[in-house]
Amino acid sequence: MKRIFEIDPWKVVTHKFNKDDKRLQESMTAIGNDYMGMRGNFEEGYSGDSLQGTYLAGVWFPDKTRVGWWKNGYPEYFGKSINAPSFIGIGITINGEKLDLAKVKFSDFNLSLDMHQGLLSRSFVYEGKDVKVKFEFERFLHISLKQAALIQVKATVLEGHVKIDFDSTLDGTIINEDSNYDEHFWMPIDEDSKAKTIQVETKSNPYKVPQFTVLLKESLRHNGEKLDGEVTTDKAKLGEKLSVELDQGQSYDLEKDVIVVTSRDVEAVDQKQNANELMDKLQSKSFDENLADHTAVWQKRWEKSDVVIAGDDAAQQGIRFNILQLFMTYYGEDKRLNVGPKGFTGEKYGGATYWDTEAYIVPMYLCVTNPNVTRALLQYRHDQLPGAFHNAKQQGLNGALFPMVTFNGIECHNEWEITFEEIHRNADIPFAIYQYTNYTGDESYVKNEGMDVLVNTARFWADRVHFSKWRNKYVMHGVTGPNEYENNVNNNWFTSTMARWLLQYTLERLPKATKEAQERLHVTDEEKAKWQDIVDKMYLGEDKKLGIFLQQDDFLDKDIRPASSIPAEERPINQHWSWDKILRSPFIKQADVLQGIYFLNDRYTKEQKEKNFDFYEPLTVHESSLSPCIHSILAAELGKKKKAVELYERTARLDLDNYNNDTVDGLHITSMSGSWLAIVQGFAGMRYDHDQLKFNPFVPDNWDHYSFKINYRDRLIEVYVDHEETKITLLKGDDLEVLVEGKKLDLKEGKTECLKD
Amino acid sequence: MKRIFEIDPWKVVTHKFNKDDKRLQESMTAIGNDYMGMRGNFEEGYSGDSLQGTYLAGVWFPDKTRVGWWKNGYPEYFGKSINAPSFIGIGITINGEKLDLAKVKFSDFNLSLDMHQGLLSRSFVYEGKDVKVKFEFERFLHISLKQAALIQVKATVLEGHVKIDFDSTLDGTIINEDSNYDEHFWMPIDEDSKAKTIQVETKSNPYKVPQFTVLLKESLRHNGEKLDGEVTTDKAKLGEKLSVELDQGQSYDLEKDVIVVTSRDVEAVDQKQNANELMDKLQSKSFDENLADHTAVWQKRWEKSDVVIAGDDAAQQGIRFNILQLFMTYYGEDKRLNVGPKGFTGEKYGGATYWDTEAYIVPMYLCVTNPNVTRALLQYRHDQLPGAFHNAKQQGLNGALFPMVTFNGIECHNEWEITFEEIHRNADIPFAIYQYTNYTGDESYVKNEGMDVLVNTARFWADRVHFSKWRNKYVMHGVTGPNEYENNVNNNWFTSTMARWLLQYTLERLPKATKEAQERLHVTDEEKAKWQDIVDKMYLGEDKKLGIFLQQDDFLDKDIRPASSIPAEERPINQHWSWDKILRSPFIKQADVLQGIYFLNDRYTKEQKEKNFDFYEPLTVHESSLSPCIHSILAAELGKKKKAVELYERTARLDLDNYNNDTVDGLHITSMSGSWLAIVQGFAGMRYDHDQLKFNPFVPDNWDHYSFKINYRDRLIEVYVDHEETKITLLKGDDLEVLVEGKKLDLKEGKTECLKD
Repeated sequence: MKRIFEIDPWKVVTHKFNKDDKRLQESMTAIGNDYMGMRGNFEEGYSGDSLQGTYLAGVWFPDKTRVGWWKNGYPEYFGKSINAPSFIGIGITINGEKLDLAKVKFSDFNLSLDMHQGLLSRSFVYEGKDVKVKFEFERFLHISLKQAALIQVKATVLEGHVKIDFDSTLDGTIINEDSNYDEHFWMPIDEDSKAKTIQVETKSNPYKVPQFTVLLKESLRHNGEKLDGEVTTDKAKLGEKLSVELDQGQSYDLEKDVIVVTSRDVEAVDQKQNANELMDKLQSKSFDENLADHTAVWQKRWEKSDVVIAGDDAAQQGIRFNILQLFMTYYGEDKRLNVGPKGFTGEKYGGATYWDTEAYIVPMYLCVTNPNVTRALLQYRHDQLPGAFHNAKQQGLNGALFPMVTFNGIECHNEWEITFEEIHRNADIPFAIYQYTNYTGDESYVKNEGMDVLVNTARFWADRVHFSKWRNKYVMHGVTGPNEYENNVNNNWFTSTMARWLLQYTLERLPKATKEAQERLHVTDEEKAKWQDIVDKMYLGEDKKLGIFLQQDDFLDKDIRPASSIPAEERPINQHWSWDKILRSPFIKQADVLQGIYFLNDRYTKEQKEKNFDFYEPLTVHESSLSPCIHSILAAELGKKKKAVELYERTARLDLDNYNNDTVDGLHITSMSGSWLAIVQGFAGMRYDHDQLKFNPFVPDNWDHYSFKINYRDRLIEVYVDHEETKITLLKGDDLEVLVEGKKLDLKEGKTECLKD
Repeated sequence: MKRIFEIDPWKVVTHKFNKDDKRLQESMTAIGNDYMGMRGNFEEGYSGDSLQGTYLAGVWFPDKTRVGWWKNGYPEYFGKSINAPSFIGIGITINGEKLDLAKVKFSDFNLSLDMHQGLLSRSFVYEGKDVKVKFEFERFLHISLKQAALIQVKATVLEGHVKIDFDSTLDGTIINEDSNYDEHFWMPIDEDSKAKTIQVETKSNPYKVPQFTVLLKESLRHNGEKLDGEVTTDKAKLGEKLSVELDQGQSYDLEKDVIVVTSRDVEAVDQKQNANELMDKLQSKSFDENLADHTAVWQKRWEKSDVVIAGDDAAQQGIRFNILQLFMTYYGEDKRLNVGPKGFTGEKYGGATYWDTEAYIVPMYLCVTNPNVTRALLQYRHDQLPGAFHNAKQQGLNGALFPMVTFNGIECHNEWEITFEEIHRNADIPFAIYQYTNYTGDESYVKNEGMDVLVNTARFWADRVHFSKWRNKYVMHGVTGPNEYENNVNNNWFTSTMARWLLQYTLERLPKATKEAQERLHVTDEEKAKWQDIVDKMYLGEDKKLGIFLQQDDFLDKDIRPASSIPAEERPINQHWSWDKILRSPFIKQADVLQGIYFLNDRYTKEQKEKNFDFYEPLTVHESSLSPCIHSILAAELGKKKKAVELYERTARLDLDNYNNDTVDGLHITSMSGSWLAIVQGFAGMRYDHDQLKFNPFVPDNWDHYSFKINYRDRLIEVYVDHEETKITLLKGDDLEVLVEGKKLDLKEGKTECLKD
């Protein structure tokens, strides 16, 4: 654990600058606007250790696969979000000395991310020879004019006379740190010193992946008036220089406006014209007016989604930081996009789509955004069915297999035990259709597009299992469950359970599908009979004596001992133990059997939940950011409040406290929803089975109270919980009956219902 | 199957040259002298597709590991035999046209490897404008002056007048095709145009692997007289030019003598002087005298080891080719060396040491070479114990773990399912100690050095198993058996059986170890008790109903069907199926349970052998070159003669007929002993349990007879088998009683004992 920012309910703020933590600082002060984003790099440049990172949603490159030993079926490339041209650069020289916080003397450092609207501010006093200059930076990525980035720097001379040279840059020569073969992904195409644009294109590739073209345009303003510096260009680089001389007490502000246009929206030949128009639109308003527009949109987002925690500012800061970062990454406004595990905050995981989206993002987004946002996420997978057919075919199997990692539906990942075996994703992803349908009550998706997904994944599962004469059951060999600390196991209970669920749900929903869907999919009676047979005879391991489901066939054959027996200096085990030792051990990376119990929560008795939780949780090392939240929710349900709070704390401030010691690589975006889920599904005990919204709340001992809002079937509901009572307010919408601690409350618009403890 | 050479009992010969088969031709005409070797490249150069390959025994480079996803415990480098400076080059230009069989017109092509002595000859008639010139090449690597290579070219003008320019080269700019990052492994150090030497050194590396320096020297002779051309040198390259003019009927011979010295034997500073001395020694005799010396040594080798097959020249050619190639690769004269899977014939497998040596080479070499040769192979592993300690430590385990792939004892391989899990090697390698002791009757090794290996591998196994309370047995999780078509399985019968054997043999032998060994190893009573407990309670899966041992826990849960059910167009499955499909399938790459029954042959009843063979062999796809021989031997033992012969044929001409379609990469050196074993242990049924030599012979239907010789405890014994009788002759040594078909024969020196069928 390492905390480099101060506790503040609405800010991520620090007054210290430690060079050793530069990358960590950059990750935590990343900003985005769902269209693009960037790490908290410094405008004036920084010569110390740093990861320069700018990312454009949906702009990626197929990087040639690197493996030690090729296995048949491996994908040819690993898709990567490209580290995009950098546009924040404003080089600064004061009386000939280059401003570089790795080298110069400075004081009064302040760095702050305002979570109301994702505005990043920074200030410090430069202390040169006989001079002191205060610099103040502000930047934001415009949420309602997505292509726009606005950056402002103000220099105020506190002491001495200074000549300041500014050099505003657009830099298309950026490379990815994680390139497999040190390849450059970008090629320069055009630089235009008059239009102040650079244009770059991704290199051609042999995989038929379309190339992307990106154009960047900059324009400077001073006191709100446009001004032109001296512009020079070189391959994919542009610099615009201007100088000012200032006496003590004088200040100078410079605004850098940037437009970023990509070929995802605008063809390369039209990009310059389009950028001109967008720049005019941007510059028809001042920096402050643009910021006001931007803030108004954020205000609306927060109104629907803020979680208030009284009495624990650290928890408050954590949950808001997570919500902000999630919304800066994805808000469902571009249906071609998805939620990368690092969002716009780093290169790791290639920025691609994982099953994290369906398992962790969907349940939260269903509640805090418009249903269309979730539907867009479902549609994203439907659009990628051709890739999923390809993936199944690569394995010689029928139907569709959604990928572990992808940009376009085609599998990118190249570890056989994951690529070919961590196939539970092929039920987890369709499970979001169930969640959507169940929460919103909207059956139109599952009846049509959803049915394509269900039937084609069902076909995969029906081919992937085989009948074991020995057991007289259908078995599933060679899988890796969510617990990636076991590979290539047989009959992983979670995978088999979810596959069986998928077949069952598909059979149940198929008769209600639209006529078109039924015709399109023509599921034969024979197929249906086979699916039903699998549902009836799927082998699901269980130990009746222990009352637990078996994570896999030989789990009990392991040397079972609690994770607490691992010496502290050997944690996390994934950084200390060889892979075989981890695989043989009984230690679990993240919820596996318990993930199934979480998903299919209403199918299991409290006793079953308790026995499995008590058996598996103590074996769990939670070395995935996705682990603690699921356990926190189940602990809450089982009345294990202390455990629930302990695990919540691990998820809520995972990045702010650098819990897993890897936030330098970027933020754990997809697991950020986990802290929200831990509060809403965990502490507040929200469930929504069978058209019934339910709560079963408690408050952590050290909190005074908490409240949150959810959208539920055209209603906006606020839930407030303190140590004495639970108050539920229907802020908007039709009457609704909810259950709180099993008691019925009739909600009416504008009214608050209260249940005393 | 593809046969590009003609059938001949003592030659590998062809009169055709097909450019498409160039690499295949190069593999099959590789020559070596245990010190160095080379592929069948052409002296004059070749511009078409070709793999230029020269290899020096024990000269290797640690190539930085390339993986997709790093796992803790992976080695930092993969050792590779370096493609060494090439010294065969004699560029030839005729009337200005470069001689290049990829381009020029030629006729009467002849290429022949004489297996008596590993002499490679080639001839053809060059047909240029108005001229015809016959070229004849001969080359061999001197077996009694190992550093020497002798190459002779003779040009005879059949038509016209020609000017021939020769350019004899030494080329140190060679690179490995299989370099992980396209790195060059060699750096030039020195070229000396007067001494006609080049000197190169392997690049420095961060792994503390010593660098190697190699010096090459050439000297030309004509009609046995030294002559000097015009020498030019450039970085690590040397060329020596001379021209001759010849009229029709005239011929010219040129002899190129080469000395290769490495820092394994001679320090860099002394190499030039040493090469001078060696060259003087070489040139104190003519080409023919040198060839005669060389041939005499080969003659002695053949006298001890030739297998004669009458009535089947293809089989005869196959077995001789295999014996020749084995002996050209390794004859035990340098204890620092071992037998790389490709010998000196290609880059694949890095040229390193595998468990193949102990499992397949040792049982043959014990019989056909001096016992010291095998003892050297055992000593090689003993010398590498420090590396084996390192490997075990990498996995967090006690004792010593011999590597899957190595040059120096330190594991090189980087696939977790192999590196960490294919640990049966750690019993197979020590098993050679048992084989040596059992065959030779020499107990001195196992009592001392051998005990170091046994005790330290025992310590590994005792730590690698764990006690399962569930089964009340010791179990072994997460292993890969010899059948690499299953990975990360639990309780692989072969691995557990061999581990148990190792512990048992160690316990049995320990009391008889030397006092020094006992003190050095100080095995505690507690340790011994633990080992005994594991021996007593090791879980070994068995299905009593089927009467078979279980390859692994869930084997019978598979969709069991015979390999014959695989469509022909999907064979070999490793080139057609995705890895997961292979893993889930019941199909077996190479002997696994049956490998154990082969090793511990005297422990199992005929019924056990039969039931396991009948169950597992039909599931086996034999996609390892190491597979058919073991099955052939067991089939022979079980009286399944047809099966035994069918599988023998698959092993004997594996490379000559390019059976696995991969001989382009080099020859399958370590599996070449398999055909010898199939004849001797299979057809002749040789066993040597408990100090008793036994035979149980038959002759394949289409053979007239066969005979072979074995060294056995200071005796030389010849075995002759035809359809009527078996004749056993004690060529040399003390009286011996042998069992033939269960009947006692008393052998006396110089006498032949005969058993009629």
